[in-house]
Formats: sequence, C-alpha cells, structure tokens
Amino acid sequence: MLIHANIYGEYRYPGQAMLPVNDLGLIRGLGVFDYLRTYNRKPFRMDDYLERLRSSADALLLPLPNDTEIKFVVKELIRRSDYPGDIGIRLLITGGTTPDGISVTKPSFIVTAEKLFLPPADVFLNGIKLITFEFLRELPQVKTTNYLTAIRNVKLKEQQNAYELLYHKNGNILETSRNNFFIFKENKLITPKNNILFGITRKVVLELAAGKYEIEEREIKTEEINDCTEAFITGTTKKIIPVVQVNDFIIGDGKPGANTVKIMRHFDDYVKGW
Amino acid sequence: MLIHANIYGEYRYPGQAMLPVNDLGLIRGLGVFDYLRTYNRKPFRMDDYLERLRSSADALLLPLPNDTEIKFVVKELIRRSDYPGDIGIRLLITGGTTPDGISVTKPSFIVTAEKLFLPPADVFLNGIKLITFEFLRELPQVKTTNYLTAIRNVKLKEQQNAYELLYHKNGNILETSRNNFFIFKENKLITPKNNILFGITRKVVLELAAGKYEIEEREIKTEEINDCTEAFITGTTKKIIPVVQVNDFIIGDGKPGANTVKIMRHFDDYVKGW
Repeated sequence: MLIHANIYGEYRYPGQAMLPVNDLGLIRGLGVFDYLRTYNRKPFRMDDYLERLRSSADALLLPLPNDTEIKFVVKELIRRSDYPGDIGIRLLITGGTTPDGISVTKPSFIVTAEKLFLPPADVFLNGIKLITFEFLRELPQVKTTNYLTAIRNVKLKEQQNAYELLYHKNGNILETSRNNFFIFKENKLITPKNNILFGITRKVVLELAAGKYEIEEREIKTEEINDCTEAFITGTTKKIIPVVQVNDFIIGDGKPGANTVKIMRHFDDYVKGW
Repeated sequence: MLIHANIYGEYRYPGQAMLPVNDLGLIRGLGVFDYLRTYNRKPFRMDDYLERLRSSADALLLPLPNDTEIKFVVKELIRRSDYPGDIGIRLLITGGTTPDGISVTKPSFIVTAEKLFLPPADVFLNGIKLITFEFLRELPQVKTTNYLTAIRNVKLKEQQNAYELLYHKNGNILETSRNNFFIFKENKLITPKNNILFGITRKVVLELAAGKYEIEEREIKTEEINDCTEAFITGTTKKIIPVVQVNDFIIGDGKPGANTVKIMRHFDDYVKGW
C-alpha cells in the first residue's frame, strides 16, 4: 500500500502518484533506488542509505537533489503519513521522460512512503531454506531496478520450498536476490565482499559483531556452505533471518544457531533505542 | 514525442498517459515490449511483431490481450494520430502495481504511438562505425526493457566516434544494443543465430536475400570480422545501415558494400509497396 508520494517536491496521494509512460525508468529500465525504513517512526541510518543511493545514481550518471533536500522530503512524508506503525521509504531516480526513446534529459526523482511488508514471525524462530542459483547481477554494486531473475524464479523457489535464491558465480557465493549472506564457522563470522550490493543491515551487523567475533570479509567458496555451523541473511525489512538449510544441506542441527540468535538480539536492542 | 497512448483500452493524450509509481515495470524492471512502425500509415509486419511480443511476455509469465484486441488498438491509434508521416507503435507490458513491492497481480498493458526518430541520411550513404563490447543480455531472446548497458555506454560510443556497440561473448559476435548484425564474405550472407533477439527486419532481410545469396545463420567468431567484405545492421527504425568499420578495422574500401546497397534497395522496394 502506497501511503504518500512526492514527485518533484509536490506531495501526492495514492492513485495520483504517477509517471509518464515514456519515462526511461519504464521503457529502458534506467532506474536506481534505495529503500530505508523507520524504527519508532524515525528513519533508520538515513545517511548510509543516502550515501549508497548517491553511489548508485553516480554509476548511471543520474543527478540527485542534495542530501538536505532529500532528508527534508523523507521526514515530511513520515510526518504526513497517517499509518501508525513503522513505514518503508522508497527513493527512486529514473532517466525521466525522453524525446527519442533513449536520451536522458530530465531525470525523475520520486519518494514514496509504503506500508512495510514484514516476513512472517515463524521464519525468525525456525529459520529458512535457501537454494543456490548461478547468477551475477549486471552491476552488482549498484541498486538498479532490475529484478528480472528474482521475479521470474518465484515458482522455482515455491517448488523447492525455499525462501530465497542464493546467487553464486565462478565458484563464489554472493548474496540472495534482495539480501546479504553471512556464515559462522564456530565463532568466526564470514561474509562475501566482492560483486555484491553493500547492505546497510550488513554494515550494522558487522559493527555489532566487531570485538565479539572474529570477522572475515572475503570470497566464500560454494563448498564452504558444507562446513559452516550457522548462516543468516540480512536486509532492511527482513533484519536478520537465520538460515537452517541450503539446498539439501542442513546447517548445524537444523535450528537457528546460537551466535545468530545473539546477533539478532543485539540488532533488536540497537533498533529499539533508535 | 508521444502522440497518443492507450491504457486499459482508454485513449489518452500526451501528459495524461501515466502509470502509478509503484508499477513493477518501474520499481523492479519487470517489463517486456515491442516496437513496430508504419509504412504508408499501415502497420508493418504486425503479425511478426505480435508473435515476438507474445513470446517475450510468456517468458516472464505476463498475460497479454489477444491479437485481435491488440491489432484493433494499434489501428485505432494510427487512425487517431494527427501526425502526417509514419509513426512508431510501442507495445509495453509490465508487472503492474504491486501490493508488496514484488508480487505480480494485475499487469499493465500500454500502447503508445510515437514520432519515429530516424537516423540521419548520411549514415545510409556513408555507413557507420561499430565498436565491440563484451556483453550478453540477461535474457537475449526476450525483448525486456533492460537497456542499462546500452545507455551507460553512450559516452564510450561518443568518445570512439562509434554509432553502436557490437556485443560479443565467449568469442562470438551477437548483436548491437538495438539491432541485428550481418556480414558478407563475397556473396555469402552470414548472421548470428544464437543468444540474440530475433529482429523482424532481420527476418525480412533473410526472406529478401533467399535465392539471391548463399545464407548462413550460425555463430560468427569475433576474428571473422577481419575477413568480411561487407557488413550491415538491421532494425525497425534504422532499416538497413551499412557498417564500414569495426574498431580499427576498415571493411572493404571503407564504403557501403555493393551487396549491402542492393539489399537496401530490395528492402526499400518491399516497404514502398506495403
């Protein structure tokens, strides 16, 4: 559900938040975005999200308003939202309308406030299954709007009773279609560092784990899944979800690992005080 | 310039042809399209374009209206267009608005009539330069809306004074970012047949060349560029454009080849009588 939307600084209500059908975001897939959320109705780690959005926009040569303007709009949308709980804020920049079907002239910048779609409670308690899938995103460090591989494999996930696809390429584990991936080998926390999108929840987890665990950011070989003692994924709406199975391999005793549960608690404490 | 647009069977004028900002075509790049044109104000080879659109839509599980309905809308848009010359018709199907940011519920189908942006006359007379670029599209046989690689390399083309990028992967020449590619080796006409979008102009050229030239549809190794005597690209708006240079290699005497010019004439005769 769309709560409010802001286009070119003008506030609009659902059904009025529209873009022209010849926007390059629509006809040529030229768009980058970011997605942050509130805790206690305050935007979470907004500076980190804006830094990543700017980096994505730069990669596609799309100009953004300055941070002060964006922050003002985000806070104003939260203030105007009549939804009582926490919300998600989508910041989308596209190539804008085009005279000839390909040239960028005036990019469109859109901010929308949306109801958060949270995972069901049982996934946090019982953990999830992932299935590996060979795929490297076209621009892995850029949060583009291209989710074709994720969407067209929804049936594959359902058939295999999996919660997410775990992408890998050239023998290395990368990320899921919308989340970062971590493993524990006993008390060593390991997460990929190349050819992935750098998640903000990933960053927070690394901050919270510093000093408590040995940390390695490095390539994870696909075979290493078979030696890990715990695993989890991280994301803005999903926070931290334990992984208890990858393909046919059961991780640990098939229940969320003890270190993972500790990190989930640290994270919950961190956002409670936000 | 957008002339008319049709959304859900309702005719709209420029500025009123809009889609909601939470359409999956915009926020998740979930869209396929096709683009046909008129000659003598009649749609050219519409059955071929509709067949390809249906094949693209099927690949992403997006349902389309039936051909009779689509043809009615296309003809009605041409009739209503007050632009005197030939026009382009874009048929776009997207995932539609989404309640949760990822699930497809009701796809959007949009037909727009646009002014044709034709290449400058000198490219037909003098030919163009291509530069090779290593890239394989994510779903090469599907006409998705993802043109990120094409758009973000516009500067590279300008710097190298090239008209288009010629994609290649694993040692094989594929296609340009929006067109099919052909070479002649003397009187043998050769064009790639794997990992490409099957162009309608490509198909017409193969029909027109049948019986006049020996034809090979097969993999073209990148090295083969250095033995070709002629080359050209094909596309809906570009028709047939001679290629006289690939990277630093000058093809033939650096002018459009004799066989290419003949095929261009056959094509012009064919569309004149359309």
